[in-house]
Amino acid sequence: MHGMKRIYFDWAATTPSFPEIFDIIAQSPFGNPSSRHQEGRESRQAFEDARKRSAAVLGVKPEQLIFTSGGTESNSIVLQTLLVRNSKAGLLYGATEHPSVRENAEMLHRIGIPVMPVQPEQDGRISAKRVLQALEKAKERDITVRMIALMAVNNETGAITDVASIVQRVRQLPGPPIHIHTDLVQTIGKVPFPLLDSGIDSAAMSAHKLGGPRGIGLLFLRRPLTVLNRGGEQEWGQRPGTENVAGALALAYCLEKLARQEELTCHYEAAATRMERLIVGLRELDRTSPIPRDREPRDPRFSPYILQAAFPGIPGEVLVRALDDAGIAISTGSACSSTKQERPVLKAMGIDSDTAFCSVRFSQGWSTTDEDIDTLLAALSTIRKTL
Amino acid sequence: MHGMKRIYFDWAATTPSFPEIFDIIAQSPFGNPSSRHQEGRESRQAFEDARKRSAAVLGVKPEQLIFTSGGTESNSIVLQTLLVRNSKAGLLYGATEHPSVRENAEMLHRIGIPVMPVQPEQDGRISAKRVLQALEKAKERDITVRMIALMAVNNETGAITDVASIVQRVRQLPGPPIHIHTDLVQTIGKVPFPLLDSGIDSAAMSAHKLGGPRGIGLLFLRRPLTVLNRGGEQEWGQRPGTENVAGALALAYCLEKLARQEELTCHYEAAATRMERLIVGLRELDRTSPIPRDREPRDPRFSPYILQAAFPGIPGEVLVRALDDAGIAISTGSACSSTKQERPVLKAMGIDSDTAFCSVRFSQGWSTTDEDIDTLLAALSTIRKTL
Repeated sequence: MHGMKRIYFDWAATTPSFPEIFDIIAQSPFGNPSSRHQEGRESRQAFEDARKRSAAVLGVKPEQLIFTSGGTESNSIVLQTLLVRNSKAGLLYGATEHPSVRENAEMLHRIGIPVMPVQPEQDGRISAKRVLQALEKAKERDITVRMIALMAVNNETGAITDVASIVQRVRQLPGPPIHIHTDLVQTIGKVPFPLLDSGIDSAAMSAHKLGGPRGIGLLFLRRPLTVLNRGGEQEWGQRPGTENVAGALALAYCLEKLARQEELTCHYEAAATRMERLIVGLRELDRTSPIPRDREPRDPRFSPYILQAAFPGIPGEVLVRALDDAGIAISTGSACSSTKQERPVLKAMGIDSDTAFCSVRFSQGWSTTDEDIDTLLAALSTIRKTL
Repeated sequence: MHGMKRIYFDWAATTPSFPEIFDIIAQSPFGNPSSRHQEGRESRQAFEDARKRSAAVLGVKPEQLIFTSGGTESNSIVLQTLLVRNSKAGLLYGATEHPSVRENAEMLHRIGIPVMPVQPEQDGRISAKRVLQALEKAKERDITVRMIALMAVNNETGAITDVASIVQRVRQLPGPPIHIHTDLVQTIGKVPFPLLDSGIDSAAMSAHKLGGPRGIGLLFLRRPLTVLNRGGEQEWGQRPGTENVAGALALAYCLEKLARQEELTCHYEAAATRMERLIVGLRELDRTSPIPRDREPRDPRFSPYILQAAFPGIPGEVLVRALDDAGIAISTGSACSSTKQERPVLKAMGIDSDTAFCSVRFSQGWSTTDEDIDTLLAALSTIRKTL
């Protein structure tokens, strides 16, 4: 079907780029920001400008932001600090985390770091209660938890974990301080999150989920960390490698476009209205339901940008293909685990494997329209009737 | 001095970009290569095409190339595999390595991995003799060396270590296999290196030293490794994170421009002729000499792209500033250690600290001209007379 207009419902995997970023990239200074000459100084100035602008949007200090190669690296930098600590410090992580936390946690476990997953509630959100129970259990097993990693918005279900309230509860506990890390890849520019006031110690962000290029992301660090990976003294020794000036300028632009309070609220409201339309429409289809089943059309427990839904009788991969043939791009879950058949996030929520096998993810973005939603619903209705 | 034409002699720090890469970036498909839909498949095809083209230029199999965020990450992926091994495997590394190897080695040492530096000969090159001696010494200390990291072209002096002949000697030794890793950041596209025939197990490369963008590099892996950093299953599990398709396409383009046999030889010859002009000219200046002192105008022991030179009486930082004021960009050594006053590479070569303090690096590239060399020499002569 050549020339057919495609409709993209996989914004959680990656987003189309803002066309402006290509000019930004082409016009960014080429010098190495660590060089002392004019070309280097110009680059340094542009790079620090990108940092300041990003910090202004995010409401943090510029020196609390480290540019990395993306969300995955931002997550792993923090997790791998556990390898540099003297004592056997333990890690607690959400069972529904992105693979860059979950798989890293399993690797850390394999090489001697005590780790423990925290199970989500049935709606996919991690509760303070579960975290405190897990900490209790860790204590019984003689594990000193020094780090907790919890994503704010789940990439497969949109479930929002109230990280700020968990931080508050954890901070009241006696014992050594616990570093709290948050994966904000699906949060920044989409769902309000008080980065500084939340009390978290670090957070991961990615440009290509915000209309920016690949190969650039941010790591918010409330205080500097002793990191594993060494090299040049770039980024105050927190992230070695020649600074990606073009990427940083593009990311700063995307943050200004999407993550400022006003823009974020505006896009959020529009996304919530479209999500309502989608969920109401889905409920009218035969044997179709959101995951979890009790997700409301406007449900503050979930990001309005992401919906997981079950189509019993139609394997997720089949539905992805059928919609693709109809000109609509969706996915089952994380692109990062697309080579695996398992659905660990849904499993952790207690979804039975038959339902998980027949579930897909719809994720929308700033340029999604009501018409796109209607086209999607019509296509789903047709597929439901034929498959 | 506004409007003055600048001359760039810091190509080892980073290079100007080929203007074509900006179109390549802007036109690359946006989909996540791990997604199953059309947008994803188009991206996957473009990405694998970039890999195949890079592999064709480098004379390796496509599946032996892993795209990373750059040279630093490529180095650290390999070094950090030591943390995943069961036994206490040791690391031998050149004392003149780039910080992304040297500093990482020191960090590994700090967390329990036995490491040992190998000292270079006086010309800055690592000899097979020194490597074998170090292996002998390691044995005496009961260290089982399982990895050797040696850069092929030194980033501060241009000294070429004959890695292939060292590999040959090491492979003849009895005992468990030793992984040999090579930092090729200053080699690929500049100095001939038989990637496959050299016998090395892995190698690091970076795009922004080849006219490409930041945030993308390559890791050659003869065989897959069990890596520390986990996440999505991208790059066969060797490097997690959403694939940087635009970066990979730009890097493939740069490799085709610079690293093909014919182009490389052509540029190499021109660079060698210009380097001859530079060294001959420098020798005519008062109290000025290459480092090492016996470096010949055409010297196969050194890359013709990089020259370290001493100007006794003029601190390196002063000369960098004076030339910068005259419109010429140079540096003292690695931009990656520009915040430090020490010169560990020169120290390892036995250069006294007074001389090291008064040394700078000139590095040229494909668009450097004879006139640029002459302008540089004239500026140096003037500075020598006034300072």
